[in-house]
Amino acid sequence: MLRIAIINGPNLNLVGIREPGIYGSRTMESLIQDLIAAFPSMEITYRQSNVEGELINFIQEFGFDYDGIILNPGGYTHTSVAIADAVAAIKAPVIEVHISNIKSREEQRHISLISKHCLGMISGLGLEGYELALDWFEKKALKK
Amino acid sequence: MLRIAIINGPNLNLVGIREPGIYGSRTMESLIQDLIAAFPSMEITYRQSNVEGELINFIQEFGFDYDGIILNPGGYTHTSVAIADAVAAIKAPVIEVHISNIKSREEQRHISLISKHCLGMISGLGLEGYELALDWFEKKALKK
Amino acid sequence: MLRIAIINGPNLNLVGIREPGIYGSRTMESLIQDLIAAFPSMEITYRQSNVEGELINFIQEFGFDYDGIILNPGGYTHTSVAIADAVAAIKAPVIEVHISNIKSREEQRHISLISKHCLGMISGLGLEGYELALDWFEKKALKK
Amino acid sequence: MLRIAIINGPNLNLVGIREPGIYGSRTMESLIQDLIAAFPSMEITYRQSNVEGELINFIQEFGFDYDGIILNPGGYTHTSVAIADAVAAIKAPVIEVHISNIKSREEQRHISLISKHCLGMISGLGLEGYELALDWFEKKALKK
Amino acid sequence: MLRIAIINGPNLNLVGIREPGIYGSRTMESLIQDLIAAFPSMEITYRQSNVEGELINFIQEFGFDYDGIILNPGGYTHTSVAIADAVAAIKAPVIEVHISNIKSREEQRHISLISKHCLGMISGLGLEGYELALDWFEKKALKK
Amino acid sequence: MLRIAIINGPNLNLVGIREPGIYGSRTMESLIQDLIAAFPSMEITYRQSNVEGELINFIQEFGFDYDGIILNPGGYTHTSVAIADAVAAIKAPVIEVHISNIKSREEQRHISLISKHCLGMISGLGLEGYELALDWFEKKALKK
Amino acid sequence: MLRIAIINGPNLNLVGIREPGIYGSRTMESLIQDLIAAFPSMEITYRQSNVEGELINFIQEFGFDYDGIILNPGGYTHTSVAIADAVAAIKAPVIEVHISNIKSREEQRHISLISKHCLGMISGLGLEGYELALDWFEKKALKK
Amino acid sequence: MLRIAIINGPNLNLVGIREPGIYGSRTMESLIQDLIAAFPSMEITYRQSNVEGELINFIQEFGFDYDGIILNPGGYTHTSVAIADAVAAIKAPVIEVHISNIKSREEQRHISLISKHCLGMISGLGLEGYELALDWFEKKALKK
Amino acid sequence: MLRIAIINGPNLNLVGIREPGIYGSRTMESLIQDLIAAFPSMEITYRQSNVEGELINFIQEFGFDYDGIILNPGGYTHTSVAIADAVAAIKAPVIEVHISNIKSREEQRHISLISKHCLGMISGLGLEGYELALDWFEKKALKK
Amino acid sequence: MLRIAIINGPNLNLVGIREPGIYGSRTMESLIQDLIAAFPSMEITYRQSNVEGELINFIQEFGFDYDGIILNPGGYTHTSVAIADAVAAIKAPVIEVHISNIKSREEQRHISLISKHCLGMISGLGLEGYELALDWFEKKALKK
Amino acid sequence: MLRIAIINGPNLNLVGIREPGIYGSRTMESLIQDLIAAFPSMEITYRQSNVEGELINFIQEFGFDYDGIILNPGGYTHTSVAIADAVAAIKAPVIEVHISNIKSREEQRHISLISKHCLGMISGLGLEGYELALDWFEKKALKK
Amino acid sequence: MLRIAIINGPNLNLVGIREPGIYGSRTMESLIQDLIAAFPSMEITYRQSNVEGELINFIQEFGFDYDGIILNPGGYTHTSVAIADAVAAIKAPVIEVHISNIKSREEQRHISLISKHCLGMISGLGLEGYELALDWFEKKALKK
Repeated sequence: MLRIAIINGPNLNLVGIREPGIYGSRTMESLIQDLIAAFPSMEITYRQSNVEGELINFIQEFGFDYDGIILNPGGYTHTSVAIADAVAAIKAPVIEVHISNIKSREEQRHISLISKHCLGMISGLGLEGYELALDWFEKKALKK
Repeated sequence: MLRIAIINGPNLNLVGIREPGIYGSRTMESLIQDLIAAFPSMEITYRQSNVEGELINFIQEFGFDYDGIILNPGGYTHTSVAIADAVAAIKAPVIEVHISNIKSREEQRHISLISKHCLGMISGLGLEGYELALDWFEKKALKK
Repeated sequence: MLRIAIINGPNLNLVGIREPGIYGSRTMESLIQDLIAAFPSMEITYRQSNVEGELINFIQEFGFDYDGIILNPGGYTHTSVAIADAVAAIKAPVIEVHISNIKSREEQRHISLISKHCLGMISGLGLEGYELALDWFEKKALKK
Repeated sequence: MLRIAIINGPNLNLVGIREPGIYGSRTMESLIQDLIAAFPSMEITYRQSNVEGELINFIQEFGFDYDGIILNPGGYTHTSVAIADAVAAIKAPVIEVHISNIKSREEQRHISLISKHCLGMISGLGLEGYELALDWFEKKALKK
Repeated sequence: MLRIAIINGPNLNLVGIREPGIYGSRTMESLIQDLIAAFPSMEITYRQSNVEGELINFIQEFGFDYDGIILNPGGYTHTSVAIADAVAAIKAPVIEVHISNIKSREEQRHISLISKHCLGMISGLGLEGYELALDWFEKKALKK
Repeated sequence: MLRIAIINGPNLNLVGIREPGIYGSRTMESLIQDLIAAFPSMEITYRQSNVEGELINFIQEFGFDYDGIILNPGGYTHTSVAIADAVAAIKAPVIEVHISNIKSREEQRHISLISKHCLGMISGLGLEGYELALDWFEKKALKK
Repeated sequence: MLRIAIINGPNLNLVGIREPGIYGSRTMESLIQDLIAAFPSMEITYRQSNVEGELINFIQEFGFDYDGIILNPGGYTHTSVAIADAVAAIKAPVIEVHISNIKSREEQRHISLISKHCLGMISGLGLEGYELALDWFEKKALKK
Repeated sequence: MLRIAIINGPNLNLVGIREPGIYGSRTMESLIQDLIAAFPSMEITYRQSNVEGELINFIQEFGFDYDGIILNPGGYTHTSVAIADAVAAIKAPVIEVHISNIKSREEQRHISLISKHCLGMISGLGLEGYELALDWFEKKALKK
Repeated sequence: MLRIAIINGPNLNLVGIREPGIYGSRTMESLIQDLIAAFPSMEITYRQSNVEGELINFIQEFGFDYDGIILNPGGYTHTSVAIADAVAAIKAPVIEVHISNIKSREEQRHISLISKHCLGMISGLGLEGYELALDWFEKKALKK
Repeated sequence: MLRIAIINGPNLNLVGIREPGIYGSRTMESLIQDLIAAFPSMEITYRQSNVEGELINFIQEFGFDYDGIILNPGGYTHTSVAIADAVAAIKAPVIEVHISNIKSREEQRHISLISKHCLGMISGLGLEGYELALDWFEKKALKK
Repeated sequence: MLRIAIINGPNLNLVGIREPGIYGSRTMESLIQDLIAAFPSMEITYRQSNVEGELINFIQEFGFDYDGIILNPGGYTHTSVAIADAVAAIKAPVIEVHISNIKSREEQRHISLISKHCLGMISGLGLEGYELALDWFEKKALKK
Repeated sequence: MLRIAIINGPNLNLVGIREPGIYGSRTMESLIQDLIAAFPSMEITYRQSNVEGELINFIQEFGFDYDGIILNPGGYTHTSVAIADAVAAIKAPVIEVHISNIKSREEQRHISLISKHCLGMISGLGLEGYELALDWFEKKALKK
């Protein structure tokens, strides 16, 4: 059974809870429930924290035994060498996911310190980005 | 019926044809055939050119009537304001796809002039990136 | 009754406690007591943390129900996109306060990633900066 | 009796006169009248000029005998080494005031050559920023 | 009757007066006379100053009642945020004119802080640039 | 008889054809027809291409025998050293025309590699910019 | 008795535990035990955290009473102004230690925001770097 | 028999044809004829295009079967990631040739995106640079 | 008789008048009197202004008829393209003088926009710098 | 017997000789004598030169036969690619030593071109830094 | 008889002597002997030094009487304004030669301060680069 | 008796010897003789070297006992941290002299690493610059 951890960074706990006019009314929790239902052959674990170091803890926790990590580092994407180090240190492949298109936002968001240690990135495709990442892990597992 | 154009830029005609040790033995043409088979409810059109201006021609050709474009601008990703202008001018949503992770390559490849006019990006996930992009267009169409 | 949260970032717990020769002998705690006494019509809540993510937690905690936040992000002022995101996501207006004049210190302190999402800034006016910010919130409330 | 000069730079003569829809209908002159009324124990002097060198003249005129200067250098904030020199040369403490939040405007407005020679800055708090600065001078005087 | 102000910045008073070998023997004054004669349906007003703040005064003087301004900011083109602010604050459309091609001169002249607030720019076309700008205002007026 | 070539770069074939709400309903073709009618004493030739190298071909084709070139390089303005080389190599004077004000658009459009080899530039004055450029060539020819 | 705190930052908990082929099989814990045995005249305290703010807590905890701190800030070396502030605020001298040579790694690791507030740095000399730092504190104490 | 392709980029078709005063009166075509005569043991193929993508086509056409390519990318030297990709993808060694010394020309010509994927470069030695490159291929072949 | 103008920029009117502890007690006026006495064969004219444009007026006033100008542009040294233009436009040779060593002060003072149009510079040698400049003009005149 | 060369760069001959108030009264020569006495099992050779190329000569002289080099390149640390090349070319491991903390000095000293080819660095720990480096070589030798 | 000096900079004395596995077993001395034999009609002089100033001495020594200089400045290529000055001051044409392709090495080696004063450059073509440079001087001499 | 050393850097031995058309026919040696004759009350010592380290030797040789140094570092002005260190380490005041105006030459010559440690600078005033520097030392000595 494929084990995948979804790790979300700062402020992503607000998605779908507050201000539905902006973020939509779908919460991360309901998304996770839908994904668990949609991928019955996978064990999906979800973590969120606003604290950079706790995200590193999660990456270390799942990075040696799980089959993959889906990581949305939020605002730490652009500033955290320490998270990048954690991604580089672990064995599990990591797919970076961003809900919005970070390239169409302001200059300082164009740089991701983390991307180069990830396997790949999906950005701008909304909450569906998480689903596509799970699809990819499933297809890769089938091909082995 | 959903109509999607896949437009590939310079040097992507070499994928799978030459040097299978590096690029694998799957050609873009066989990928396209597989995708057409896998998405029977879509009309998938494929174009490739090494010429920047012909890529603009293709974007203009499909950008007003098609439901979406999957664009891999290859080396023009990092240098072409003109392709970015074409993407900005059309109506169809564009997903930028890169086979390899452009962020783990050299500095000059970290900048994409085109990304900010695209809906989103999928990079580093191999030829499967094209498939994920088609998945996304299909899911979006189903939700409407 | 106007509710205002004062949130202080890293190392601001040292003010007035250690090394009075440098920072003066007035602690943040005694300042807060004085401010509570001076603004009886306000409910003033105080939080301090050295942890970036906990500051985000505080901003989220007060950002949707309180009438304003006075934020001194300390050293995170210059490096935290994640705190800037939190400030941008909430409803309450935020006034950034710095005890010393950050422009007269070294180069790397000249940039504030957070300022542009704040309503305004008061810097270099000492602990009185917090009082001026409360004054402003009070005056604005009276005008409504 | 505390003597404070308020010195406004280029284009600030337009505030409240033209285009009330944008700047509000309160003119700098009426603001100054209100401030004089609100601070009866102070002698408040007001100067405005569009000419960089005249602002230097004003700073020199009041900088050796007055108790403080409130300076809004307008567009010269970001380009004038000469005004910064004048501020550095005088004895009176200077508080820099900006009506709008200069950090949320375009890139070139993020740099203030003048700030590092000022005591502090108040920005983004509207015309009330001038009032807060006067408050500060009054409180400081009382503590002596 | 269309009212247009032509405002010239520093050192442009030397054109055609001194060193005819370099600048030609046509003075700005004679050019203005010729333009007045050539555009009898317009009221053309001319101002020149070497002082940055006086140029702002002129822009404010004509910027709310005139139909257009032709502005050659000379050396202030590349350094004046304050003139840019004045252009942004007024109602009249502004065409920036440069006698020589500023892009073929040294690096520091490539940046114009003022251009982005102007309607457009004519550069490198000699004294005829002023005439073309008047042509444009006349044509626009005819189309209304 | 004065011979002038008008050469338009990428995406300018879309002007007036698609999306009249944005670009107006006047096509480049009808503009060219109007210009031919308005300047009966000139032989006006029009070329457009999305391909950088074809623009170089056009510049070489007309650059040695024609009396002038009006060049709108579109998105290649900011990236093409090769077009700049072509402009530098030919004999005919070149006026660069941009329909919109490139300085009021995003950062990367502020640099023109081509301008310094052109005689001058007209930007931001709409389709009338082409007409002004023809006016200039006509006036210059009359003075000879 | 000399009291020294050794404070390790993010991902340094992985040293010697996982992937011995890369990091060797010596853990930080066994290193600390060996150091305690090798320096019987010192009281050596060890802390590690992946959380930036907890590192600040540790620096504040030991920084006023201990005789020295050996700090390996890991990935925060290059991004943390807040840790640099903590180092600057305390009394104890700090030696920065890096296991590998940070200058021979990628560009972004060449900058240390923290170094300038430390007494000195030892980098690239492996786990022995911690021992050399303790040697230095011991020698300095003997000379007093 | 050694097979070498000489590929010339934009504007190099003008060498020796127009403006002999500047470029000399020797055309590329006559140079190629002389080189064919001088190196009878080689099969020399010549291509020129002003179109970036056609240069990529040529590089792909000769890059897998020929023994070497002599490439003068002209103005694309400094801007084309796509040509650099083509050079990196092929098997044949590439020598970059420039007729003039690109380092003694303006700043933007100092960067060559293509050089790092080439075997080496000869610049500033005039049309003789092509001959030296052929010499080198011949000497290398003799040594095998 | 040699005619030399000494032109001083902003804040140089304060030298020797206020704060003798810092600037010494010698005023510019007494310096000028001493210089007039020391160089009886010269006609020395002195001007000072805090206004950038008036400095341009002075440079134009003396730049065509005088034998030399000694210019201390003060804070405009580092920001004024317009003064640089004036220096470039006139006939008289200009020696730039700075009382203090501008290179040992902060970064932004290291750049002089004006220097390259001057004949030379004397900096850091105190008020004697003006005297050395007059010496130089005298020696040059004697050699003719 | 372990052979180690200590190589000092420019101005380090002044340490302890002149100005004892600043550098202390311990000369490099007496330090070397002490080190020779303290490490009887090592052959320690000392060289100093103010000439960049002689430092390269020394590095080449000892770099192939000695067991290690302790290098303090002084002011060449920040500017010498040639010394970096020498360090990269030799076999002996090199430890870079700096007496003071180069990171707490001015900006231009923050970059070391040489560090990345060294094994490691010790900086800011005074003359004891040389001793620590010898310690390290001795410990490493014992472990073999 | 044509007189050519070959001048090699720092660390080039190591070529072919030490570490033949890396540099090959051909020494610069044997190369020079081969070149003398291969070009009997030339007088070839060889100099090498690790000292920047001695290279300047050599350039001055041969630069006024010899027919050409072949210069490999080694690591000084990227840092020496003084060698560039020497090349600019002499009469003899200089060809810069680099054994390896400096553009495919690290960033700091991409800049050559010296190139712009040289006639041309040959890089990346191994020791044969020196031979090609001699060829060029011979061919040029024959054409005169 | 005042003792002053004049120290000249690389390529300044060529002044007046070779190419009198460019540098004039006055050699540094004859200048020195004239200066010795003109300043009989001074002991003037002259040194020149092309070697950076020898210039440091000279600065150390005269820097502790002489009354002043006149230093023209030639091309090392812009690159030598080591000479700057030597100037900072000595007691004698140093005046930097440049024969030509370094600001009117190319970009890389605009930065002087050495200036900030010097007392002042004289540039662009020809060989007379040395004489003015001696004048200054003489006047200063007279005032003591």
